[in-house]
Amino acid sequence: MAITLYDLAGAEADRRFSPFCWRARMALAHKGLDVEPVPWRFTEKDKLPQPNAGRVPVIVDGGQVVHDSTAIADFLEARYPDDATLFGGESGRALTSFVQNWTETVLQPALVGLVVLDIWRHAAPQDQAYFRQSREERFGTSLENVVKDREQRLPAFRDSLAPLRRTLERQKFLAGEAPAYADYIVFGAFQWARAISDFALLAADDPVAAWRGRLLDAFGGLARRAPAYGG
Amino acid sequence: MAITLYDLAGAEADRRFSPFCWRARMALAHKGLDVEPVPWRFTEKDKLPQPNAGRVPVIVDGGQVVHDSTAIADFLEARYPDDATLFGGESGRALTSFVQNWTETVLQPALVGLVVLDIWRHAAPQDQAYFRQSREERFGTSLENVVKDREQRLPAFRDSLAPLRRTLERQKFLAGEAPAYADYIVFGAFQWARAISDFALLAADDPVAAWRGRLLDAFGGLARRAPAYGG
Repeated sequence: MAITLYDLAGAEADRRFSPFCWRARMALAHKGLDVEPVPWRFTEKDKLPQPNAGRVPVIVDGGQVVHDSTAIADFLEARYPDDATLFGGESGRALTSFVQNWTETVLQPALVGLVVLDIWRHAAPQDQAYFRQSREERFGTSLENVVKDREQRLPAFRDSLAPLRRTLERQKFLAGEAPAYADYIVFGAFQWARAISDFALLAADDPVAAWRGRLLDAFGGLARRAPAYGG
Repeated sequence: MAITLYDLAGAEADRRFSPFCWRARMALAHKGLDVEPVPWRFTEKDKLPQPNAGRVPVIVDGGQVVHDSTAIADFLEARYPDDATLFGGESGRALTSFVQNWTETVLQPALVGLVVLDIWRHAAPQDQAYFRQSREERFGTSLENVVKDREQRLPAFRDSLAPLRRTLERQKFLAGEAPAYADYIVFGAFQWARAISDFALLAADDPVAAWRGRLLDAFGGLARRAPAYGG
């Protein structure tokens, strides 16, 4: 039976732009599991199965509800131990946390400062007021103001990718010869941005762009087929 | 037979302040190997066994010379596979590269900007002119100028540790319940600074400081016994 995935959608139901949902989507594909994605909007808190924290991803697997992308990855690794590993053992699991925390304290905050207005543009009409108000409170200014100097900030953003770039200059994936959950965590952030923004985050010759391309092609082009911009 | 480790020393022969040598020192201790450290100064290029790249660490194990801290870790893992693992398998090895690249592109460059004058102060007299000239060329200004606003830069430095801090809030070591090579890479940078500078890099209640304390205590207090400041 397919696993249900509640997945953040925009004005178009098939445009999926949550970095955390992309982590889950790629992890499910890595395990070779059938997925039935359910498009979900920010303001549909009451449509999620219990328990949840008012956010996606949430999965339902044979009646069991699991929410939070990290909990979902741990659940899949424990429940499907014979399928390809997401972590490569205990050390891999622990080291993946560092990649996750870099993504959440460095990469994603920088990305949101570059594409937050594009997110608002692609949000479902019923979500736009909620999204604008909650994010403008967080930034203390309008979404237009947040992004207006993004061209000037692009070189510093690209510089901040140095740990990622140097790693991918020397190996195919963060997890080595084949991708694993650490790759999906970082990829989720780029795929999120790419789904809603045409702002060119990466130079064409950046090894990070080549790695992203390999992950766009993974699992029969799962992420490449999803509605997105070229950037 | 003990493994010889050529280890960067300062004016005092037992003050060891290379981040890369500390990686090797901790890796050798992790494997439970006997070590015979040989103090070495920047300008003693001709005293290293062949082959070398004019830098330390260099080890000699039963006649075999290995140079470069990463090559040494890989050599030890391959040669002593039955002792405690440094990486936890292939995924762990690959993910450790990301930790290394974060350390070398974010942490160490920030640290050198805070303590470079302290390094010069502790260098052997015959090394001081070489050290000052090579570093002032790199920075394009005097060592005194590099560090003069370091108090103002301290909050940004502490903020830059967010990925490390958040990980260590949630687990004992980067590698999980027990330390491994990823921990020694990051620890090497802090131990390098601590060996030559009394500048307080970390707030007392920082989880990073608690983790550093655990590694200072590891292997019977190997790093804590080495000449250093409290910071």
